[in-house]
Amino acid sequence: MVKYPGGYQKNNNNQSLARGKSNLGKGLEDDINKTNEYYLVYDLAVVHKKPTTIQVVNVRYPNRKMAEITKAFYTTPSTTDYNGVYKGRAIDFEAKQTSSTTSFSFSLIHDHQIEHLQKVINHHGIAFIIIRFSTLDETYYVEAQKVINLYFQKRRSIPYKWFLENAYLIPYSLTPPIDYLKVIDQLYFKGDTDGKQKWKLRWN
Amino acid sequence: MVKYPGGYQKNNNNQSLARGKSNLGKGLEDDINKTNEYYLVYDLAVVHKKPTTIQVVNVRYPNRKMAEITKAFYTTPSTTDYNGVYKGRAIDFEAKQTSSTTSFSFSLIHDHQIEHLQKVINHHGIAFIIIRFSTLDETYYVEAQKVINLYFQKRRSIPYKWFLENAYLIPYSLTPPIDYLKVIDQLYFKGDTDGKQKWKLRWN
Repeated sequence: MVKYPGGYQKNNNNQSLARGKSNLGKGLEDDINKTNEYYLVYDLAVVHKKPTTIQVVNVRYPNRKMAEITKAFYTTPSTTDYNGVYKGRAIDFEAKQTSSTTSFSFSLIHDHQIEHLQKVINHHGIAFIIIRFSTLDETYYVEAQKVINLYFQKRRSIPYKWFLENAYLIPYSLTPPIDYLKVIDQLYFKGDTDGKQKWKLRWN
Repeated sequence: MVKYPGGYQKNNNNQSLARGKSNLGKGLEDDINKTNEYYLVYDLAVVHKKPTTIQVVNVRYPNRKMAEITKAFYTTPSTTDYNGVYKGRAIDFEAKQTSSTTSFSFSLIHDHQIEHLQKVINHHGIAFIIIRFSTLDETYYVEAQKVINLYFQKRRSIPYKWFLENAYLIPYSLTPPIDYLKVIDQLYFKGDTDGKQKWKLRWN
């Protein structure tokens, strides 16, 4: 049985029809960028994609005020792609998609991204992974800790069925495409039903 | 500011700082990177510098597994340089240094960085600016809101004397060079004297 945060009902309105499956490669990234922009415009959260990590080798200066990079390479990122702030809390996540219909391979996540997510959790940040099964057109919110636990069991992949039990399906909509804050609200801010209550950080 | 092809912007103070006065510009950045690494190693916080924003124009593929960027430009970042998580809270800051001994010029901060810091504050993140008067060898922690308030008073600069009254001098040490978490502890976590108490997020 698929979990639905907050009594969500599965939106069966032909997600694949609504969106099309033409640009699978950039699809998830675009959807998340649009979502973050929506959150920013409607002042719900401040989340940004980190710039791609690039190692610059050569730079030339055609004139005094201009720098042109003439040789550079993409490097492996040491953290996740997205982070920001929501209701005071640090949120941090990675987004991955797979065309497989049966499993999600751990080869899609870097070791240091796993380490990074664990650190964020240790420091009480909200860490998760958004995983899209692009062929099935299903996008899941998965708490990072659950994925990390499987990772340390030396699994090579996570079966699709595992997601049905352990992850949260994020219904596709247009405003915004991937409304992951709804899942966060259910998991971390249940008392905040109208979104208007003030939070307080208190110490035991 | 005039926009140039490739997203390059002329008169970018940051870049001329980073380039022309490279030693000056890198000193503070190095100190902060070392500090963040110290925090990471001793498991005190998870803070990273965001990669430099670069717009890639041309890429060539010398072989199937290699991508070499042959033309790219530095672009103006839309957020601050540093962010992360400390005791669950999102922290977000920018670091700037000036060789002036009398004032800090607002030309060193981009408009959208001011906007970004305001958004982080609105969402209850901990937002600040680390400002170094390099000639005086003094590094200050300034709450972002105070700087933003002056910014909206259309000030062109902030007098050095203002910092003595309104900012927090961060003593230089080796472990770590710029111990800004100490200031954050005083401002936001006063109850947490031994750093071991557990926090709780509660709703009014």
